[in-house]
This record gives sequence, C-alpha cells and structure tokens, in this order.
Amino acid sequence: MPDKGYVQIYTGNGKGKTTASLGLALRAICSGKKVYMGQFIKGMDYSEMKAPSLLDGLIIEQYGRDCFIKNDPTEEDIRIAKEGLEKIKKIINSGEYDLVILDELNVALYYQLVSVVDVLDIITGKPIKTELVITGRYAPEELIAAADLVTEMKEIKHYYQQGVSARKGIEN
Amino acid sequence: MPDKGYVQIYTGNGKGKTTASLGLALRAICSGKKVYMGQFIKGMDYSEMKAPSLLDGLIIEQYGRDCFIKNDPTEEDIRIAKEGLEKIKKIINSGEYDLVILDELNVALYYQLVSVVDVLDIITGKPIKTELVITGRYAPEELIAAADLVTEMKEIKHYYQQGVSARKGIEN
Repeated sequence: MPDKGYVQIYTGNGKGKTTASLGLALRAICSGKKVYMGQFIKGMDYSEMKAPSLLDGLIIEQYGRDCFIKNDPTEEDIRIAKEGLEKIKKIINSGEYDLVILDELNVALYYQLVSVVDVLDIITGKPIKTELVITGRYAPEELIAAADLVTEMKEIKHYYQQGVSARKGIEN
Repeated sequence: MPDKGYVQIYTGNGKGKTTASLGLALRAICSGKKVYMGQFIKGMDYSEMKAPSLLDGLIIEQYGRDCFIKNDPTEEDIRIAKEGLEKIKKIINSGEYDLVILDELNVALYYQLVSVVDVLDIITGKPIKTELVITGRYAPEELIAAADLVTEMKEIKHYYQQGVSARKGIEN
C-alpha cells in the first residue's frame, strides 16, 4: 500500500482516457486494492459495467443520463452530477477505497454541472493514502495545477474519421 | 463482434499507454471477447500478471527479461523479442483472439530487437476481425501510417519528477 496517494488527470481529445482509468482499476484490483469508479455524464450500459461482477473490490456507479449532453445541460443533468459528486466525496472521505476514479469529471466541469471549487475541496480534504484519478476532455487549469500527474491523450489519428462507429467491447 | 478489427497505437512519453491497453482488455473481456497480451521488453512481475487468473478469456505472456534494456541490447534481448513476435504472429493468425495487444512493441522496434517490416507484415496478413493494439514510446512513422487510430500520451506533469518511485498496483 503506498503511504501517499496522488492525483492523476487524463485529459485531451484522443481515445484512451476512460480506458486508462479502467486499466488502473484492473492493476489496482490485481494488487489487492479497493477501487471505486464514478462515471459522470454517462448513464449508458457500457461493457465495463460488467467488470464489478468479475473483479472483487471494484464498484462502478453512474451519475449521468442515458444520452450525452447536447448544447445546454438540463436541471436534471445538474442534479444528477451534483448528487454524484456529493456521494463520491463521502466515498473518498470514508477511506475505504485506495483508488477513486472520477470518470468524465472534466466534462461535467466544462458544462458547469459541478464547480471546480468543490473538486479542489475534495482534493485538499482527501485521506492521504487515497489515489484520485480524474478523466475527461477540457481539464481546467486549476485542476491541472492541483494534480501530481497529468497526461494529455492527443488524437493523432482516429477511425471515427473514417466513418467507423463506436463498437461494443472496444469503445463502449 | 465487430466485422472488422482495426489497428490502434498508443505512444508518447506520458503515463497511460500500457494502462489503456489493460483497460481495453478488461472492456473486451466484459463483452465476451478473447484477449491476448504479449509484453515486450518486460519480464518483471507486474500486478497485471495476476489479471488472467481473475478474467476468463485473457492471456498475458512476457517476452522480455527481468530488467529494462540499458544502452545496448544483448543477443538474449534480441532472441527473446524475435521469438515473442513469431509466437504472437501465430496467435494473431489463429483467429482465436478478438483483441491482441503487443505491449511495448514500439520500444522493441526502437532498440531494433525486431524489424518494422515484420510488424507491417503481421498487420497486412492479420485476420480481418482481429483488433491489434500496439503500445510504447517511439512509434515509428511506418507504423503510424499503417494504423487506424493513434493516440499520443503526452506528459504534461509526472510525479516521478517529484521523486516518487513506481508503485505496486499503480505503475506496476
């Protein structure tokens, strides 16, 4: 068990952000850690929703609706995201999880569903040992400044541009 | 099952390349696919080596020694990598795996343990449905040209620069 947990951010426009956080979850579970993943924006039935039934010590919960936000978010979008952040804050502060993933939180911040001040509060107040992972495009400067590790996933080439749709078991 | 499998590359100097490929493996397993991961360069006991015992349909094998290559690779490094690529080629061509990950292959290419011509041959000759994922820094131009999706993981900030060492269950 590491003595100190860090704050990692995966941002940028390329494929691999949520995917990397799932890989971190798998590696952590393999070494006996407990992992909680909260997905903002998303309420769809992604393949990874099955992972907790295969991996002891992993929980995934969704704080989004069954479609992406287009243009203006609704009050319902805001309510669900705010409740999600409140719940995840409790989960972090319980100290029961070694790794907590806030998937697509950057996108929830971009759409102002939750506030960056609340997220910075969570980072400052988290138990020392807890590792936080935050994913999503548009990571705000304040979060980048507060993080210990930031990787930008940069799209060099994407098959979506060839007209390929998202595929079950690969993208979702 | 997708009708056509693509070639994905994760490269760059930031954290998240092998990790993203592990996430892809997990998502694929969740949707009932079969996954083979071959790790070049690496022969260390990473946490993810336990994943196949937790996830039905996942195999991970290593084609490296118990330390990273420093400066000049030895004949042993070359032999192990070449044998690995031969074996993985057979695995790909068997058509038994939906997703085949060639982890750190770019680094093996950089050190000239294997040749890019052999890798391009594998890509050209692979069963249509098989998805290939290639990871590692220094992806050569020829591979980027042949790939359908390329993400560069770009280091914006890394806690290694604060003197933090690789941690069990997070980095390895």
